[in-house]
Amino acid sequence: MELTLGELVARLGGELAGDAGVRVRQVASLESAGDGDLAFLSNPRLSAALAGSQASAFILAPKAAGLTERPRVITPDPYLYFARAAQLFNPPKAAAPGIHATAVVASSLPASVSVGPQAVIGEDCRIGENCVIGPGCVIGDKVVLGAGSLLHGGVRIYDHCVIGARAIMHAGVVIGADGLGFARDADKHWVKIPQIGRVIIGDDVEIGANTAIDRGALDDTVIGNGVKLDNLIHVAHNCQIGDDTILAAMVGMAGSTRLGKRVMAGGKAGFSGHLEVADDVVVSADTNVTKTIDKAGVYTSLLPIQPHADWVRNFAHLRRLDAMAERLRELEKKLAQMEKES
Amino acid sequence: MELTLGELVARLGGELAGDAGVRVRQVASLESAGDGDLAFLSNPRLSAALAGSQASAFILAPKAAGLTERPRVITPDPYLYFARAAQLFNPPKAAAPGIHATAVVASSLPASVSVGPQAVIGEDCRIGENCVIGPGCVIGDKVVLGAGSLLHGGVRIYDHCVIGARAIMHAGVVIGADGLGFARDADKHWVKIPQIGRVIIGDDVEIGANTAIDRGALDDTVIGNGVKLDNLIHVAHNCQIGDDTILAAMVGMAGSTRLGKRVMAGGKAGFSGHLEVADDVVVSADTNVTKTIDKAGVYTSLLPIQPHADWVRNFAHLRRLDAMAERLRELEKKLAQMEKES
Amino acid sequence: MELTLGELVARLGGELAGDAGVRVRQVASLESAGDGDLAFLSNPRLSAALAGSQASAFILAPKAAGLTERPRVITPDPYLYFARAAQLFNPPKAAAPGIHATAVVASSLPASVSVGPQAVIGEDCRIGENCVIGPGCVIGDKVVLGAGSLLHGGVRIYDHCVIGARAIMHAGVVIGADGLGFARDADKHWVKIPQIGRVIIGDDVEIGANTAIDRGALDDTVIGNGVKLDNLIHVAHNCQIGDDTILAAMVGMAGSTRLGKRVMAGGKAGFSGHLEVADDVVVSADTNVTKTIDKAGVYTSLLPIQPHADWVRNFAHLRRLDAMAERLRELEKKLAQMEKES
Repeated sequence: MELTLGELVARLGGELAGDAGVRVRQVASLESAGDGDLAFLSNPRLSAALAGSQASAFILAPKAAGLTERPRVITPDPYLYFARAAQLFNPPKAAAPGIHATAVVASSLPASVSVGPQAVIGEDCRIGENCVIGPGCVIGDKVVLGAGSLLHGGVRIYDHCVIGARAIMHAGVVIGADGLGFARDADKHWVKIPQIGRVIIGDDVEIGANTAIDRGALDDTVIGNGVKLDNLIHVAHNCQIGDDTILAAMVGMAGSTRLGKRVMAGGKAGFSGHLEVADDVVVSADTNVTKTIDKAGVYTSLLPIQPHADWVRNFAHLRRLDAMAERLRELEKKLAQMEKES
Repeated sequence: MELTLGELVARLGGELAGDAGVRVRQVASLESAGDGDLAFLSNPRLSAALAGSQASAFILAPKAAGLTERPRVITPDPYLYFARAAQLFNPPKAAAPGIHATAVVASSLPASVSVGPQAVIGEDCRIGENCVIGPGCVIGDKVVLGAGSLLHGGVRIYDHCVIGARAIMHAGVVIGADGLGFARDADKHWVKIPQIGRVIIGDDVEIGANTAIDRGALDDTVIGNGVKLDNLIHVAHNCQIGDDTILAAMVGMAGSTRLGKRVMAGGKAGFSGHLEVADDVVVSADTNVTKTIDKAGVYTSLLPIQPHADWVRNFAHLRRLDAMAERLRELEKKLAQMEKES
Repeated sequence: MELTLGELVARLGGELAGDAGVRVRQVASLESAGDGDLAFLSNPRLSAALAGSQASAFILAPKAAGLTERPRVITPDPYLYFARAAQLFNPPKAAAPGIHATAVVASSLPASVSVGPQAVIGEDCRIGENCVIGPGCVIGDKVVLGAGSLLHGGVRIYDHCVIGARAIMHAGVVIGADGLGFARDADKHWVKIPQIGRVIIGDDVEIGANTAIDRGALDDTVIGNGVKLDNLIHVAHNCQIGDDTILAAMVGMAGSTRLGKRVMAGGKAGFSGHLEVADDVVVSADTNVTKTIDKAGVYTSLLPIQPHADWVRNFAHLRRLDAMAERLRELEKKLAQMEKES
């Protein structure tokens, strides 16, 4: 697709400045943009990069509008505008409707659905219009998948799971495996507790490569609308994740924990089990949430990095912090005594 | 399956109180239970939930037996009893014996084995009676899989690995990939060391989604009987894991580390290489075991979470703990001197 | 393959001592070696194990050459020599050239390529000579894969990715999934930014099981030559990894971070986004790199493990370190005042 800047603004809004007839057909970064590219300025400090950019047009915030005279769209949120332009120029790859001859499908599907080679779909599934099931996906029995969903190659969905419309699941995602549910017998062997809940996922959810969401033990694991999960995330049985929450890669959630709406967690953050996290909480990367958080805000437990020798010298004291505190108390007592006596 | 409470107690034991004729056919949580459901009370503090529950019958500990007059089983360990009842009401899904037409199988299998669509089994494998090999599984050459094992879709087992009876492996599990074994040459390039050991897994082992267990470098990686591994775990080459050990999701084990029997590790715990961990050790979530632990007990290195501003204020001192300790020593010296002089 | 020790030295170099005619056909550890095995001594402290070993021959450093009179190769770097001998005795498993009848291949391939059962290869791919594509692999459209590469079962490579020669990818690897790229709209919903960059991987790269490398958002994610990545690693969009860097299992890299050459990171290490890490930096296990490192050296932020009760006692003070520091300052001030007055 190629548009003039004027046509782009007619579609996506924003205020046009400079030559409305310049043609754009792709988005690019300031540094690598060339003829036909539309670039955006995320940060006014990048004005030097703007000056040197070969892009045909720019997306700028009002306060940056005067940094160039070249063709540009002025909009309050350039990054959001850039996202919408990027979607316009890069529609999802078309997949031919129909079931590949090597796929094994035991449910009846709408004619608009595309099923790739080697995919397997079980019995009594309800697959929505225009879904794309990639090569080698395995979908169990009685699975529900909403319209317009895209499963990349090798996604596995266990029996009875329910997924909303417009889902995007990347390769290696596993939905609905058993949670770690065991009772211990008198001989200290583990006795499996069958996991009979489901995974219920809302609309517009994207899930990254090799992420695993376990089915509920008795009740369901529930993921809200608009949730975005990155790669290699673990969501344990009976967790609940509120709408529009976003978790970066390698986040782990222990069982039965509930995240509110619009929670954001950095990479490798962890959540202990049976907690509640309020709406709009932000958890820093590699931070362990070990108790309920009932108030929006930013929370952190990340350890600062040091040159190894400094770390050895400083961190040895962590093992005797309590003794240090006691010595401090002792000094304060003595000094108070001396002051009284003097 | 539907049973009277009397029939249930005849099968699973326990002391019956109340109406022996009430019929139960499923387990459920106190909150979501309805007619025909059996619920258990894990915690006497939940007596309000018990009173409000719509369950047909309950599993109670002796000290909670008087909390209701409704039909109930009294047993010393309600959670264990619940596990056994849940197994009774939820037997594993039956899989039709036989090899799916699309599977590619180069070994001879017992007639009782079920091989799903698109599965691949190499040469000279020994697969036990009643195994279920899910869709898209890939099993290499000379693999041994004990009777009654269940591989969900997309499990990969490399050549020569040996797995015991009644294994359960979830989607995306990888058994026997190469460990990170490299020597460095004079130009600082890495030279691969072929990984020629195997993975040997005992009986009754369950392994969660996308977990990877590397084959040994020279000797074998060995997993004991009754071990339970959650999702997204990494077990490096030459590790050994003792019987009935359980590891929560995202635990990582570096090479050649040996865990004893009945070790329990919380989510994201990590083990450095070449360590030994004694039987019955409990490692807290996100705790790094950096040295051998030779005594049972609970071990922790988890960092407490704080509001971000508090964290900034407090954690800055971590970088100068040694200086703080030195200042404390200096104060103690001065004060001792002053006391001597006064 | 079986060689005399003399033949081995003729091929791989080193100084021969003892019987040149002893025959070796495999490498083994000192402890488990038997007749025909070649073992190496990594550490002079293992001389007792050397004395008790049943190996037919040994690889020894010059300073250990006198520890035994048995057949041996003396070489400055026994571990490197061992790696080369191990490669000699354990060549990669041969795969028959040709495309399995169940594979679905839409590109034209050299006759030397081996494609396993159920593999899927898209359109316009360029696959080099002697590549082995394992069972159930899914390769998208326009993918480039260099000569001599080996993909184990179930590897997924998205469209347009470029991989060099002699790659080894283990089961469950995902190359080129979308990064976590979203803008937030006025209603706090996430708007997807199509990820239009690629993953570009150099020659001689090995990637462990279930590791995921995301494609670039606009520009490419770039992995250098000779890089070795362990299992369950996450490399976010637009990262760059320099030649001969090695990352242990479960390392996570946030977006746009650049690692230099020969960087080494321990298991579970994490890198925040938009950082630069200099050549030859070593990052300890479970250490979080939260700022740019511009100088080679070892860096650490690992928390020391403690018995749980000690941890409770000591770590409580972490939440009031700033108050402790303030009390220390107060004491110093008072004491200085008292000294002045006395």
